Amino acid sequence: MDQALILQQMQKFWNNDMPFNQLLGLNITKFDHQESEVRFVWQDKLVGNPMQKILHGGVTATALDLVGGVVAAANIIAQLTDHSSQSIALSLRKLSTIDLRTDFLLPGRGDEFIATAKIIRSGSKVAVARMELHNEQNDHIAFGTGTYMVG
Amino acid sequence: MDQALILQQMQKFWNNDMPFNQLLGLNITKFDHQESEVRFVWQDKLVGNPMQKILHGGVTATALDLVGGVVAAANIIAQLTDHSSQSIALSLRKLSTIDLRTDFLLPGRGDEFIATAKIIRSGSKVAVARMELHNEQNDHIAFGTGTYMVG
Amino acid sequence: MDQALILQQMQKFWNNDMPFNQLLGLNITKFDHQESEVRFVWQDKLVGNPMQKILHGGVTATALDLVGGVVAAANIIAQLTDHSSQSIALSLRKLSTIDLRTDFLLPGRGDEFIATAKIIRSGSKVAVARMELHNEQNDHIAFGTGTYMVG
Amino acid sequence: MDQALILQQMQKFWNNDMPFNQLLGLNITKFDHQESEVRFVWQDKLVGNPMQKILHGGVTATALDLVGGVVAAANIIAQLTDHSSQSIALSLRKLSTIDLRTDFLLPGRGDEFIATAKIIRSGSKVAVARMELHNEQNDHIAFGTGTYMVG
Repeated sequence: MDQALILQQMQKFWNNDMPFNQLLGLNITKFDHQESEVRFVWQDKLVGNPMQKILHGGVTATALDLVGGVVAAANIIAQLTDHSSQSIALSLRKLSTIDLRTDFLLPGRGDEFIATAKIIRSGSKVAVARMELHNEQNDHIAFGTGTYMVG
Repeated sequence: MDQALILQQMQKFWNNDMPFNQLLGLNITKFDHQESEVRFVWQDKLVGNPMQKILHGGVTATALDLVGGVVAAANIIAQLTDHSSQSIALSLRKLSTIDLRTDFLLPGRGDEFIATAKIIRSGSKVAVARMELHNEQNDHIAFGTGTYMVG
Repeated sequence: MDQALILQQMQKFWNNDMPFNQLLGLNITKFDHQESEVRFVWQDKLVGNPMQKILHGGVTATALDLVGGVVAAANIIAQLTDHSSQSIALSLRKLSTIDLRTDFLLPGRGDEFIATAKIIRSGSKVAVARMELHNEQNDHIAFGTGTYMVG
Repeated sequence: MDQALILQQMQKFWNNDMPFNQLLGLNITKFDHQESEVRFVWQDKLVGNPMQKILHGGVTATALDLVGGVVAAANIIAQLTDHSSQSIALSLRKLSTIDLRTDFLLPGRGDEFIATAKIIRSGSKVAVARMELHNEQNDHIAFGTGTYMVG
């Protein structure tokens, strides 16, 4: 199985079979080892404080954690030499978030939200990603830094 | 209105009228300026990866952000001299998370989860809280540090 | 006094009268509200572990904290309407670091090190900066995020 | 060589042969896998801003990074089964800081400063420590969280 196909299948699986991502409507739109992307649309249930119609900080943190995990997963795949399903499954089971920092820059207002992630450290054991959240008007809502266990 | 009554009303409001907290089943069980507490029970929709029945990291971050915000809000109330509803409402509108760090220590397994927060810096403009997440068996699942705008 | 002159004088003062910066040889080379820069050269006394000739992590954190503080200070100046020495001094006395995250990406090897900072949140009370450390060969040694009290 | 002796020798080496720790006067006073401690006394060269006689934030970050590294190193030793000098040296070469968060709570004033660290996650690859800095009057100056590569 070639790498593009693997990433495509993972994207499908992560989009359709992860309960909490589905609950929030998070949709992986780019599953790539250089830059990954997650999108979601406004829903009233994502509100923190009803007096100010803005995203709960936990929604922002969730989207950043996910998109950072996606780019880290794509880096795991990119480093694999054995592309059997079993080898991929084994490698991905090691993926977990060690720590996550979220910087909230602007209130989370918008119709659609776009989270992006880039890898800034890609080791055999630990990867670090930097994430951003923008709305559809390109307002910069949040920054994030995530450290992931990858091996 | 005395302070205990104010905190009681805020607890009720935050528990019943915050959509995302309700979606996750987060329940504030202690609204206090020294230590606050949030509890929630396991639900399948809170799962990250269905192959490993554990909480999504975003659920953990959300619970820590909430309980840190609760203890910060209680500190705002504790510093108020004017206890009119209007003064309280005005003060609380300034509350927002500046940044949040989450350290994931153990996989999020359990039947019930307890998030607690203590204030470690309480200024007129910025407050800092340290948070912890345990399950019902007292396994220490996560640590958090949150910086909140309070004035 | 115009803004450029103020920044010039601050740069001189910070470079010549801050003991710990001088001890480490940190030199502010750009004092600007959009992007600031600090440079320093390798010195054996900056070594952490003598078995591996690399910068102590504390040197990296110090350089990132400084350059983030410089860009935050320049933003305080940029927002002042009263440019008297007294007003400037009063405003700058409020500057302090609330929290600092440092991500170590590569071992700190090199002959010269360049720390840069950009503001990502600039409020009347709190500013957030993102920082980077590179060596003279443009190896990316560290990333940082700093939250500063500015008002 | 038994574990107590190993830790004793490491403490001696780290105290006497690490240039930057010596420059700052950092002295490891407890090298233990459960809780480690570093002490240092006030010196004028550690000042950030001369107008306010307080520690540079970089000094605080350095002390926290060191004491977290000490407790992480003691955990590496505690997990070793082969206690030969070579095995110890090999294991410790893997030790490095992945990321460090410092929360500044109070201005760094005092005659003596005590940094302490406890391990909150101790894995075969990654360890996480929580650190605190107090002065001799037990004022709580700073909190820290460090993620360390240990294997």
